[in-house]
Amino acid sequence: MQSLRERIVADGVTVGTDTVKVDSFLNHQIDVRFFEELARGFSMRFADLEPGSVDKILTVESSGIAVATFTAREFGYPPVVFAKKDLPSTMTEDYWFTEIMSFTKSKMTAIRIAKKYLQAGERVLIIDDFLAHGQAASGLVRLCAEAGCELLGVGAVIEKQFQGGATLLAREGVRVESLAVIERIEDGRIHFAEGRA
Amino acid sequence: MQSLRERIVADGVTVGTDTVKVDSFLNHQIDVRFFEELARGFSMRFADLEPGSVDKILTVESSGIAVATFTAREFGYPPVVFAKKDLPSTMTEDYWFTEIMSFTKSKMTAIRIAKKYLQAGERVLIIDDFLAHGQAASGLVRLCAEAGCELLGVGAVIEKQFQGGATLLAREGVRVESLAVIERIEDGRIHFAEGRA
Repeated sequence: MQSLRERIVADGVTVGTDTVKVDSFLNHQIDVRFFEELARGFSMRFADLEPGSVDKILTVESSGIAVATFTAREFGYPPVVFAKKDLPSTMTEDYWFTEIMSFTKSKMTAIRIAKKYLQAGERVLIIDDFLAHGQAASGLVRLCAEAGCELLGVGAVIEKQFQGGATLLAREGVRVESLAVIERIEDGRIHFAEGRA
Repeated sequence: MQSLRERIVADGVTVGTDTVKVDSFLNHQIDVRFFEELARGFSMRFADLEPGSVDKILTVESSGIAVATFTAREFGYPPVVFAKKDLPSTMTEDYWFTEIMSFTKSKMTAIRIAKKYLQAGERVLIIDDFLAHGQAASGLVRLCAEAGCELLGVGAVIEKQFQGGATLLAREGVRVESLAVIERIEDGRIHFAEGRA
């Protein structure tokens, strides 16, 4: 997605060879109109899905929530469910549970989804802001599998190809669509993967 | 807001006299079309604000993000900024910082906003899902004050009047608009405040 690549180059701040900070528009401050464009980006990538074929959009708190919610508008307004990282005192019923490694926070995090919001047979699209090592996405994929859902694919706004998350998911047979694919970061410059995104 | 009150009664699950769980449509699973309606609710409540007079919408992760982002669409698409609870390794610049008590999680939580995303003179509207004890909202109010912003008000989807958050904010001179105001929960029944919301 050309406008996204341009935005990453214009506003992204690289840190070393692993990190590009995009908190000016994506995951701390949100450019709302641009999010509508990102959502349309996903609708084009998954244009082969029949209208009405997405029963649920799944993401994980926090920074996946806004993009997942806007994406839902493009797919006929299915409910969005976001996995929770803390265990709120109000989450008293049965939930699906798995652990994921957060590399940016250097710790394992549990993610949970109440079982009643992810049911067998539901066709699920996973949407997130970043696909890096693929920990969050494969955690959500595991929860879908446990719940007996049909996984339609994973959509990520920005994929950092060099961290292998997309490869990991592809090996598990998961369809991955990323709106921008960063091949590498070198001397503060961002190189996008040609031919993809 | 009548449709919200009906939804709370239909789908909310009360726990004791303090808690109503609305995770089927508000803060775990999101009813996206209903969020558009909630956003219009806020635009009606703050209809006196001149077009273009909201420079920024402020919320706190996680469950405020979606409603804040949809509300931004009603106010000319200002950026949404959400305060962060964890300290991500990528947050290296100066930030505003305060601590708030989370009663549902029984712990103090730090919230942070990078200084560059909240600047002196900006006219800020705070939007959140719940207003209970007012901890999150008054934390955000403090950050706005420190940053030298002009606070336009606080909008909450559901206010639990009996927990005093709105009173606390009003005492500080903050305008509060809640789309539904719960006066009390008694024997599993939700009583809404008359004359407000």
